[in-house]
Amino acid sequence: MNIPLSSYPRIVIIGGGFGGVSLAKKLSKKEVQVVLLDKNNYHTFQPLLYQVSTGGLEPDSIAYPLRKVLIGYDNFYFRLAEVTEVDPGHKKIKTDIGDLSYDYLVVATGSETNFFGNTEIEHHAMSMKSIPQSLNLRSLILENFEQALLTDDYHERDALMNFVIVGGGPTGVELAGALAEIKKGILPKDYPDLDTRRAQINIIQGGDCLLPGFSIQASKKAEDFLEELGVQVWKGVRVTGYDGKTVTTKTDLVFQSAAVIWAAGVKGASIKGLDAADVLAGGNRLKVNEFNQVIGYPEIFAIGDIACMATEDNPRGHPMVAQPAIQQGRLLGENMVKLLEHKPMKPFVYNDKGSMATIGRNKAVCDIKGYRFQGIFAWFVWMFVHLFFLIGFRNRMVVFINWVYNYIRFDREARLIIRPYKRDYSQFKD
Amino acid sequence: MNIPLSSYPRIVIIGGGFGGVSLAKKLSKKEVQVVLLDKNNYHTFQPLLYQVSTGGLEPDSIAYPLRKVLIGYDNFYFRLAEVTEVDPGHKKIKTDIGDLSYDYLVVATGSETNFFGNTEIEHHAMSMKSIPQSLNLRSLILENFEQALLTDDYHERDALMNFVIVGGGPTGVELAGALAEIKKGILPKDYPDLDTRRAQINIIQGGDCLLPGFSIQASKKAEDFLEELGVQVWKGVRVTGYDGKTVTTKTDLVFQSAAVIWAAGVKGASIKGLDAADVLAGGNRLKVNEFNQVIGYPEIFAIGDIACMATEDNPRGHPMVAQPAIQQGRLLGENMVKLLEHKPMKPFVYNDKGSMATIGRNKAVCDIKGYRFQGIFAWFVWMFVHLFFLIGFRNRMVVFINWVYNYIRFDREARLIIRPYKRDYSQFKD
Repeated sequence: MNIPLSSYPRIVIIGGGFGGVSLAKKLSKKEVQVVLLDKNNYHTFQPLLYQVSTGGLEPDSIAYPLRKVLIGYDNFYFRLAEVTEVDPGHKKIKTDIGDLSYDYLVVATGSETNFFGNTEIEHHAMSMKSIPQSLNLRSLILENFEQALLTDDYHERDALMNFVIVGGGPTGVELAGALAEIKKGILPKDYPDLDTRRAQINIIQGGDCLLPGFSIQASKKAEDFLEELGVQVWKGVRVTGYDGKTVTTKTDLVFQSAAVIWAAGVKGASIKGLDAADVLAGGNRLKVNEFNQVIGYPEIFAIGDIACMATEDNPRGHPMVAQPAIQQGRLLGENMVKLLEHKPMKPFVYNDKGSMATIGRNKAVCDIKGYRFQGIFAWFVWMFVHLFFLIGFRNRMVVFINWVYNYIRFDREARLIIRPYKRDYSQFKD
Repeated sequence: MNIPLSSYPRIVIIGGGFGGVSLAKKLSKKEVQVVLLDKNNYHTFQPLLYQVSTGGLEPDSIAYPLRKVLIGYDNFYFRLAEVTEVDPGHKKIKTDIGDLSYDYLVVATGSETNFFGNTEIEHHAMSMKSIPQSLNLRSLILENFEQALLTDDYHERDALMNFVIVGGGPTGVELAGALAEIKKGILPKDYPDLDTRRAQINIIQGGDCLLPGFSIQASKKAEDFLEELGVQVWKGVRVTGYDGKTVTTKTDLVFQSAAVIWAAGVKGASIKGLDAADVLAGGNRLKVNEFNQVIGYPEIFAIGDIACMATEDNPRGHPMVAQPAIQQGRLLGENMVKLLEHKPMKPFVYNDKGSMATIGRNKAVCDIKGYRFQGIFAWFVWMFVHLFFLIGFRNRMVVFINWVYNYIRFDREARLIIRPYKRDYSQFKD
């Protein structure tokens, strides 16, 4: 890879998510060379992907060009690359655009959808971890309604309008709420010649409550909100298969559906070369110490979803969400400077800012530092926080305009099928 | 196709472009059944596609859901369909979702890129007539710069940064200007490790002047503006081939380029069944009379780019741009009502509102009703007119915000490669 040699130590960051970007920003203007690698040329604001899938936002408004992150900083290099292997013995990584040596390596690869080894579900269900995936889901939803108009088969029509969301975490809950609002506000107007009352939104949770990790109060309220919106909530149900038509479960409960969204789990996006059994914790994450150093590799760090730092409060690692990634990225930036100056590093302490999820218009739940509140105020807090953490002034403006418009007009205008006409869906899952 | 029978006559409109949408709007609340067919579920504001290609605008902000066009109107049906054939004898059309009979048919299929039979160019060059095509061009431009960073081969690097735009009409001129501004304002910041001064933008025009159809004054000024921005303007040069690497011309002039954009011509997007030699005019357009009736078929109308209405002022048909389509669509809406009431129809008279093209920041040329002006005022007029004709309040707001942001910050933030990673380009040309 064509990265010029520098007299400064080279820090290679794999992944431009919340962790990688926060770290890169902290390292700007420091005496280091920073190489940021990502397989996309943009940062994705994952918490709003479900709004792209449901036509509420343009994809471009929740993405930010990674080259802009450290614009004007001399020792910053971005490369569009997929890292295939780490060779810690030679302090080198292998990528699809060539090898690169490093002095320090930071793995910030995030997470990917966990199908728990079920390849049938992996092949047929949609997931929502990236912008292309969200756009494909948006197209699928819209295409299914167009298709429903064309069939005389009653069962097929119902299946095309039957959404099954597997997983009752924030992603599943937010998507279910957004689909329910589309059913209520948009479908009857857009498809007057279709009985859209028959559209169903099911959310299936394996455990006993929605939003595990939230307070019982938030979890209960989220369920109430969803039911108010007409979503069917199934708890304690384990999905076992989906062949593109029928969702099977551990019991005799089945769903006929042409749109299954898998939001039932994530796992660390680990890289070859670091996957020794003694490094990987549960969920395919890399075990790190309190400085985010990968156990056994002092020059390799891991931050965010991919890092598993077992602490007293979080014995199985921090939650795989934005906040730990941002906080670890920032602290690691400071710690790397300390490391280079041979000063002691500061251990990571997670500042749990709380959890929140939005279910719909004026309906959100927040658990923030002991305060638990739900409803319209929670919804405004949710919006404010998301606008605040969104990267880029233009993005904030565009998202804000869209939200105001959607709120006033009960509308979601970005309902466009933008992909080659009638293409096989399976090609578009990545 | 599942369209309910109605006691009203059925008007089938093929195509939801400027013509089709203007017509559909005029027919709302009239005693007719309107069926609008399009292979996309959205209307595309084609005059701004070049801004999508160059990262200035999100694709969603220049598209509008076709189902929203006549929302709430009982006798309006939209279907996502590709029409394959017209059978005028049985007053029927064939589509990929089944057959449909009509009482009146309106062909508003618009135009497609004309490669003048050169399949080699068609295979390798990009065109910019649809949103997917514009997004593919955006990705190609950005990927080429990422690629340029990776090569040690001096010639390859130059070819990756060498843009060749074939065609000096408004599309070519506007794209060339936008690329020149990117070269000046964005590339040096985004690619500090690349000598982006070597990037070249060439515009090749077969005729003697840019912007044929504009005033000589506008044409000259556009050329001055482009040269000011560093664009190389080649006039009187005919491109003969492009094999993916080398652009050949009629003389010994060649260009090494990895990004050739073909904007050298359009032709009517005609449909099988109406392509009898006596119906087709030059450029694959359907000959129509002054009421937009296709010659020889009293129940079939054609409007917009696909229609060739020979008049004294425009012996070879009206220009293939938005205004004739909008005006013909509106008049035809009135005329169809008259036709059904057995009243005489009104002949079409083109109200030429003028032509305009923008070359860059504060640089546009306008020929409006005898007034010819260029520069910053023309640029404001251009923006105002485009915002005005854009469909949808949200779209106008989002485009406006983006323009203000881009103007103040000298930026274009939507520079994201949103398509599956490192895919073969040839797949994405449609």
